[in-house]
Amino acid sequence: MNALPMTVPAPGLPPRVRIHEVGARDGLQNEKTAVPTEVKAEFVHRLAAAGLTTIEATSFVHPKWVPQLADAEQLFPLLADVEAALPVLVPNERGLDRALALGATRIAVFGSATETFASRNLNRTVAESLAMFEPVVARAKQAGAHVRGYLSMCFGDPWEGPVPVDGVVGVAKALLDLGCDELSLGDTIGVATPGHVQALLSALNGAGVATDLIGVHFHDTYGQALSNTLAALQHGVTTVDASAGGLGGCPYAKSATGNLATEDLVWMLDGLGIETGVDLAALTATSVWMAEQLGRPSPSRTVRALSHKE
Amino acid sequence: MNALPMTVPAPGLPPRVRIHEVGARDGLQNEKTAVPTEVKAEFVHRLAAAGLTTIEATSFVHPKWVPQLADAEQLFPLLADVEAALPVLVPNERGLDRALALGATRIAVFGSATETFASRNLNRTVAESLAMFEPVVARAKQAGAHVRGYLSMCFGDPWEGPVPVDGVVGVAKALLDLGCDELSLGDTIGVATPGHVQALLSALNGAGVATDLIGVHFHDTYGQALSNTLAALQHGVTTVDASAGGLGGCPYAKSATGNLATEDLVWMLDGLGIETGVDLAALTATSVWMAEQLGRPSPSRTVRALSHKE
Repeated sequence: MNALPMTVPAPGLPPRVRIHEVGARDGLQNEKTAVPTEVKAEFVHRLAAAGLTTIEATSFVHPKWVPQLADAEQLFPLLADVEAALPVLVPNERGLDRALALGATRIAVFGSATETFASRNLNRTVAESLAMFEPVVARAKQAGAHVRGYLSMCFGDPWEGPVPVDGVVGVAKALLDLGCDELSLGDTIGVATPGHVQALLSALNGAGVATDLIGVHFHDTYGQALSNTLAALQHGVTTVDASAGGLGGCPYAKSATGNLATEDLVWMLDGLGIETGVDLAALTATSVWMAEQLGRPSPSRTVRALSHKE
Repeated sequence: MNALPMTVPAPGLPPRVRIHEVGARDGLQNEKTAVPTEVKAEFVHRLAAAGLTTIEATSFVHPKWVPQLADAEQLFPLLADVEAALPVLVPNERGLDRALALGATRIAVFGSATETFASRNLNRTVAESLAMFEPVVARAKQAGAHVRGYLSMCFGDPWEGPVPVDGVVGVAKALLDLGCDELSLGDTIGVATPGHVQALLSALNGAGVATDLIGVHFHDTYGQALSNTLAALQHGVTTVDASAGGLGGCPYAKSATGNLATEDLVWMLDGLGIETGVDLAALTATSVWMAEQLGRPSPSRTVRALSHKE
């Protein structure tokens, strides 16, 4: 028998969740195996066919920094017929130019809630990084693009430890003030727990940020991603980032630092009767296929369980 | 820096949770590698030293059925100095005799919520299995022992599919009527989701079963164990079963069917400020040591992350 969850709604949860699929970008940029452009294109097509409506496709960062996604110019035109929103990451104005030249209509910028990560990842202070994003966001908006603002290290930072909620709220508001249409709050090192999630969401609301502008992006480093997602749903969040098959976290590494697997998320949402539009079987088949391309099993527990032959 | 969760309580959760540690019994009985009796004894001692107060030690089932725990008679006397409650599983009166002869003061019986699993696992109907337990529970109580009633397949059954809540409530009440002091509701195949968990708990309350008689026992087959635990805590449950290091689920099997890892649970509870008495670092060190005995890494994400050397 094909196991599927029994649908039993819980009170107080949203009727529908939009999954922001990050496997093709955030996932593949953290995989060691190089993936041919044609395979990436097929991956995005299959994700769309499985019902995902927002699929982050690639990154227009300099190839020196993310060689895994150096083929953005070649990949993006292959996705012209994909029936899904296809945001792309741009680090700066040069990246924005490349993305807009190819017809991208949704872009994302990647900020940090902490000074140490801003310094290490962006080689700037938080204020300097916001100044760098200002013309990127302004020009993207002028071009009619939708802009997502990622905010990493919202809960803990590997160098600074626990991250105070107030600091996150400040940078979040700054990104919205620049013109970002939505935020994605990242638990980049996976340390968050449900009370912390709800405290940050409440603090953002208290500072005037509406819940419907907020997406959540949890990592499963300590196995906490799905319970944190439940806490966010209970707060009213309706945009959840996830990575098909848990791409980006290697099951053989001692430390599995990957994103929440989309299949594990869909299992819970299906069980709760929360609509996503995603066909779990088709998505799982896609992740099994992608794992074969990468030459290793998927770290998603749902993918492993559903693809297990008795 | 040693990552630890920032403590941020969430409203409406219990201040304290009792973890019922099942690694030495439910975990090891599902591991393929044979573990020497002395190693099991050291494992239980180390679990107690890490702060666990209820450690299910072994099973007095016929060695033919569970050869991994065939050394119960040899192991139990080695645990005389352990400062924790040490329940043992007994399948029938013969098992009870063996356990009581060794001085066990807490026993557990293992029932099924579904007819198919009762037939396959116990070779009896549900009613026949309850009849078999009746003298076991009665004699255990006469001997002054505390009795836990496990109820497996409370959410889904691999042969029957979704399990109706009403049937589970009937068997649960029957176990309490026999004299069981507490129940453990098992999601043996890991299919439950939070609404289903809360619906079952509400139905049990509606049938007169108080929440403080109910423990929950989730499996992480589909990555759902911790979010289901959060849902149970929100309902008021204060007894949670977990297995140190996720013992019982092989990380190399295509289908990881293991118990919730105690470390993943403690990470969440520590973050929520819920007291358990468990020292996460000492527990993780114990699971790393046990994984070495078994010759393979722990499936617990928290164990892998905390034991990862940069």
